[in-house]
Amino acid sequence: MTRYYRHPKPFVLESGEILPELTIAYHCYGQLNAARDNAVWVCHALTASSDVADWWPHTVEKGCFLDPERFFVVCANIIGSHYGTTGPLSDNPLTGRPYYADFPRVTIRDMARAHAILADALGIDRIHALVGSSVGGFQALEWICGQPERFDRLVLIATDAKASPWTIAIDETQRMAIKADPTFGEPRPDAAMAGLAAARAIGLLTYRGGKGYNRSQQDADDRTADEPHRACTYQQYQGLKLCRRYNAYSYVAILDSFDTHDVGRGRGGTAEALSAIKARTLVVGISSDIIFTPEEMRSLAAAIPGAEYREIDSDFGLDGFLVEHGRLNELLIPFL
Amino acid sequence: MTRYYRHPKPFVLESGEILPELTIAYHCYGQLNAARDNAVWVCHALTASSDVADWWPHTVEKGCFLDPERFFVVCANIIGSHYGTTGPLSDNPLTGRPYYADFPRVTIRDMARAHAILADALGIDRIHALVGSSVGGFQALEWICGQPERFDRLVLIATDAKASPWTIAIDETQRMAIKADPTFGEPRPDAAMAGLAAARAIGLLTYRGGKGYNRSQQDADDRTADEPHRACTYQQYQGLKLCRRYNAYSYVAILDSFDTHDVGRGRGGTAEALSAIKARTLVVGISSDIIFTPEEMRSLAAAIPGAEYREIDSDFGLDGFLVEHGRLNELLIPFL
Repeated sequence: MTRYYRHPKPFVLESGEILPELTIAYHCYGQLNAARDNAVWVCHALTASSDVADWWPHTVEKGCFLDPERFFVVCANIIGSHYGTTGPLSDNPLTGRPYYADFPRVTIRDMARAHAILADALGIDRIHALVGSSVGGFQALEWICGQPERFDRLVLIATDAKASPWTIAIDETQRMAIKADPTFGEPRPDAAMAGLAAARAIGLLTYRGGKGYNRSQQDADDRTADEPHRACTYQQYQGLKLCRRYNAYSYVAILDSFDTHDVGRGRGGTAEALSAIKARTLVVGISSDIIFTPEEMRSLAAAIPGAEYREIDSDFGLDGFLVEHGRLNELLIPFL
Repeated sequence: MTRYYRHPKPFVLESGEILPELTIAYHCYGQLNAARDNAVWVCHALTASSDVADWWPHTVEKGCFLDPERFFVVCANIIGSHYGTTGPLSDNPLTGRPYYADFPRVTIRDMARAHAILADALGIDRIHALVGSSVGGFQALEWICGQPERFDRLVLIATDAKASPWTIAIDETQRMAIKADPTFGEPRPDAAMAGLAAARAIGLLTYRGGKGYNRSQQDADDRTADEPHRACTYQQYQGLKLCRRYNAYSYVAILDSFDTHDVGRGRGGTAEALSAIKARTLVVGISSDIIFTPEEMRSLAAAIPGAEYREIDSDFGLDGFLVEHGRLNELLIPFL
């Protein structure tokens, strides 16, 4: 069940712009214990919602690493998203109409600050573990670098401390595809759907990579020349599927925030910021990930005091964190 | 100087459709010797022209592997291209107007057959070496599998014998971006320019890969938050640059042909087709190529009788074949 927290005052963004109203949509699983020391906070990626049990299969289950009988699992929907937290489809109180393309620029640091506000409101001072993969890891790193005393454990899966030129180029390419659709900018929730579908297809290429496609999208042996290739229908289908559940303005707002990611901003650089982390840290890379390569994940682990690095051998690229739940549970259950 | 060969009869495509007229644009460098045994044929990739000296720096030069004092170097522009061979901007003799989106479906095999027609017309029976990288390699493999006796040497750089689900997914994603621009289909040469720019940006991601971007597109240390990231301006600039010299209909026609690539079609499968190659073959992979990975290139070499495999260590992905001319010359001069 989605819950909502209404922040009782305007939220000042890192840019200086102000959200006159901030609502945070979130999910909780399990119970906060009497000692208030069993909270596990999950940060979600681009188009996900706060419903972890929905988008991350075989995690929020008895015996899995987010076991709701042991932990009080919380996930907050990020600012800018389509799923309940204030975003481009929310009404701008100053105009009485949705923001759409006029939603202010948001940073990963803004998102992390909203998480901290919700944690305060829920009375969770200390957090047993903070978990983030991909852009969820961006938020986790921002939050822990801002409040290093708050966390006992940190789990970073396929992520980075700063957006790289490569990830920024991927974001920009998706924006180019969305804006090739001239309905982007029109004040309606279903603007730029063809562009959004193409952007999603770009994202998927990078999440899954060559090995993933070659394993999962081979054509049938008896395919005739007239039949579409499975890889084509897959890209089309996934694009359409996102269009049915998301909007182009949220997608662009969140892509824009990725580019700003740098835990070192205003903290003396990335290395300095990471060296302040006090939590026991586990960094997990995925062998075939072409966005956050194992090499980069090892460097990230090396920059965090005492961090342990583990690798999941998978052909599914970044998507491996969704696919390889058996292996993830093996690594994370003992750590948590 | 671009030369033109006008095929004296209609060209029947593999699909059964007919091009009533076929013009082939081509370049030659150097002279065919008296023995007619010094021809080196280069096949070009997606958006290139027949002017090898223009798009492949430090190759068609004295002392380089396409030395025009030693070899008679020929490159033919592919069917569907923007650069002089019959394509979507050519007039359809049946309507008197350009084909645009109605240009018939072309396969890599059609392109290879056009190369053979030009070679016949130029009086080159036997070809000393056939060279192709990326989609140029697709054509080279098609041609040599169709006429295995014609070639003494074969050089395949970063290519494959059959389009993989991964490469087809990349093609489809580019088509999605182009078609997100609703001007695609309008009967004008500059239709779908925003879509074409986005498609080019997608292509670049895959040609260059993470290491390439992270090496070449780092932001300056003193970049302020207001300045665009270098990776963003690079993607925008490269998209625009292609729009100034190319058209979306040719781009889509050639992308479509990629998907059809399979040297094994009608030849008992890929392995059977490759086993018929008689030329001395050198297969070159690029260490960071995410489209045609070194692993796949080794498999390709293993499937060609007696083929030698060499790898170029480069951070520039598939683009390494354009960037690492020093290393390429080292490998190819002794081989040719």
